[in-house]
Amino acid sequence: METKKSLIMLPGPTNLSDRVMQAMTKPIISHREPEFHALHQSILNNLRYVFQTKNDVFVLTSSGTGGVYCAISNIVNPNDKVIIPVFGVFSQRMKEKIVRCGGKPVELPLKWGEAPTAEQIEHIVEKEGDVKAIALMYNETSTGVTVRDLPKIGRIARENNLILVVDAISVLGGDRLPVDEWGIDVCVVGSQKCLACPPGLAMVSVSDRAWEVIEKTAARPYYFDLVKMKEFSAKNETPYTPAVPLFYALDEALKMIREEGLEKRFKRHSTCARAFYKAVEALKLKPFPNEKVRSNTVIAVNMPAGVNNTELRKIMREQHKVSVAGGQSKLKESIIRIGCLGIISEKETIPTIEALEDALSALQYPVQVGTGVEAARRVFHS
Amino acid sequence: METKKSLIMLPGPTNLSDRVMQAMTKPIISHREPEFHALHQSILNNLRYVFQTKNDVFVLTSSGTGGVYCAISNIVNPNDKVIIPVFGVFSQRMKEKIVRCGGKPVELPLKWGEAPTAEQIEHIVEKEGDVKAIALMYNETSTGVTVRDLPKIGRIARENNLILVVDAISVLGGDRLPVDEWGIDVCVVGSQKCLACPPGLAMVSVSDRAWEVIEKTAARPYYFDLVKMKEFSAKNETPYTPAVPLFYALDEALKMIREEGLEKRFKRHSTCARAFYKAVEALKLKPFPNEKVRSNTVIAVNMPAGVNNTELRKIMREQHKVSVAGGQSKLKESIIRIGCLGIISEKETIPTIEALEDALSALQYPVQVGTGVEAARRVFHS
Repeated sequence: METKKSLIMLPGPTNLSDRVMQAMTKPIISHREPEFHALHQSILNNLRYVFQTKNDVFVLTSSGTGGVYCAISNIVNPNDKVIIPVFGVFSQRMKEKIVRCGGKPVELPLKWGEAPTAEQIEHIVEKEGDVKAIALMYNETSTGVTVRDLPKIGRIARENNLILVVDAISVLGGDRLPVDEWGIDVCVVGSQKCLACPPGLAMVSVSDRAWEVIEKTAARPYYFDLVKMKEFSAKNETPYTPAVPLFYALDEALKMIREEGLEKRFKRHSTCARAFYKAVEALKLKPFPNEKVRSNTVIAVNMPAGVNNTELRKIMREQHKVSVAGGQSKLKESIIRIGCLGIISEKETIPTIEALEDALSALQYPVQVGTGVEAARRVFHS
Repeated sequence: METKKSLIMLPGPTNLSDRVMQAMTKPIISHREPEFHALHQSILNNLRYVFQTKNDVFVLTSSGTGGVYCAISNIVNPNDKVIIPVFGVFSQRMKEKIVRCGGKPVELPLKWGEAPTAEQIEHIVEKEGDVKAIALMYNETSTGVTVRDLPKIGRIARENNLILVVDAISVLGGDRLPVDEWGIDVCVVGSQKCLACPPGLAMVSVSDRAWEVIEKTAARPYYFDLVKMKEFSAKNETPYTPAVPLFYALDEALKMIREEGLEKRFKRHSTCARAFYKAVEALKLKPFPNEKVRSNTVIAVNMPAGVNNTELRKIMREQHKVSVAGGQSKLKESIIRIGCLGIISEKETIPTIEALEDALSALQYPVQVGTGVEAARRVFHS
């Protein structure tokens, strides 16, 4: 019997293609020689396509958290006021980063499962007056919420001359995010999510408006100094030794995105998301977020009464080789989260729903096995 | 004709073994599940062996520079006095990190090519009085110098209750450095040097004495917060998504070190270094550092008058597929640097010397081709 391949259906890291996997085994090269310069140039060109930007882009040898810390610490000086809507674990972490840099977070506290609206942001901007920046979690990975008002928030930032910093770690490359059109000054993505790359790299874009601020920031952290990165990027190098195998993987993954095309890629993600949400509905489960702000890349689902999410995930993992995530912080036990990103198609979606149905059934939840899969199939074949 | 394999003879990154290369292609796993816990535990056990320490050790998803920045920024508070001998590019960078953290570097400026002595350090400690720490570059990668007085400097640090931070990026695993025996409080190594791993990870060890200081440091950078790392390490996790393929590679590389044994590994490095130095002498070239402080892992050689090091390296690279490095900063044109680390044996040493002889000869330097190789061979076969 053929061994069933494991499916990593987490909100990152994601499954990898063979092409990306094999790219990592190319020979190590010096990061100060022409071979690396060409690799760096190729990555940057394709990153600009994925970010839909003419801005500078940088590749950092760090996790996504390092990328967001880089963004915040290059923008925020002590006592700077930064608007930060908090509606989950990662927006909370963004706030902590602002505090760590000596900034004054102007918090917009929201119910988890909701997203900030443009009106709410505008109201704070008017009330506070001397705000420097808006820090925004575009796709709150902990709650499965996408901020659909982002384009409007971008307009507010421009009109009030505020810097807009967006954490798009679990969404860029999987859902619409035209950085220039929406006026995002600093945008951060992680390698291991919608780009379908291994974990270990973060990418950051920086607008001209942002550069004006960054150049005046006194305490840019040594390892995350964007001004230094810009200086080296001009010669297609990084200031410090890059994780070369991950750069190879990123280059390959970006080429695959170009081959597929962004629009087709977004469509693939949104179709799979719709299939997941339809299946959830058919199984009489409830997505965690409000309907209007549900993410196309992270599917968060409430656990029904009596179903323990650790046991559910264990059955899915051990009996079906499908890994999904539990909740985080106060949602630890009350939701599961399914990654719908990177390598995602009917081929991954259906077995995940099958595993979910089976695990629910094993845990005595009254489910009619097959109804979820059928609802999902209808999405793919209608 | 068989294509000759390229030899990366840089002071890092180094050549990789097939075992380490292939380890990167293992399936991606979640960093919050038992598979990762086991991987993390295995890495930590073997790292403690390589560091020769009972201290805590951490693996950071960052380059070596990130590791040193982590060490400095967790120890140094604004206005803290830190002794820093400066004798090359990387010790200069350590100083810059101290400044960036608001610390007051007490610089011991030295001629490049020399190493600080215990007497010099002791003198400063006595003169300054209220010093908090000593920051030391154990192996100055830019000049090929090893601080042979490190054990004595460790004793001075203990006796005066100073924290000793050591950058051992290009030497740990390739030359003697028993962290506990020598009293090193925070020790940093990079993955891509003597450990023979791909670039992208930094490892940091932390002593009990260091913890007392770190816990009181106010502005630990968000991404490099050792207290947070300790909290997660207790459950065999990292606070943020780790570069899983590089963790696999590190695990494999550390297993290979254990199989070889540290003593044998140090001997292998020092034998190859002796072969290089003997060859250099036979070719009537001069190593850059003073004789007593020459590194066993980075061989720095003065360029003779009339020989352009860029042209020399180009010939070695293009005609022999052997990559060596030029100098950095004020040594940019005046030296070459050969990495004698990680995957290094007679098999890599001899072709490198052959390539060097040939390139020197092509550039009209009066060399008797073969004398370098012969001198090196004598080292291996005596």
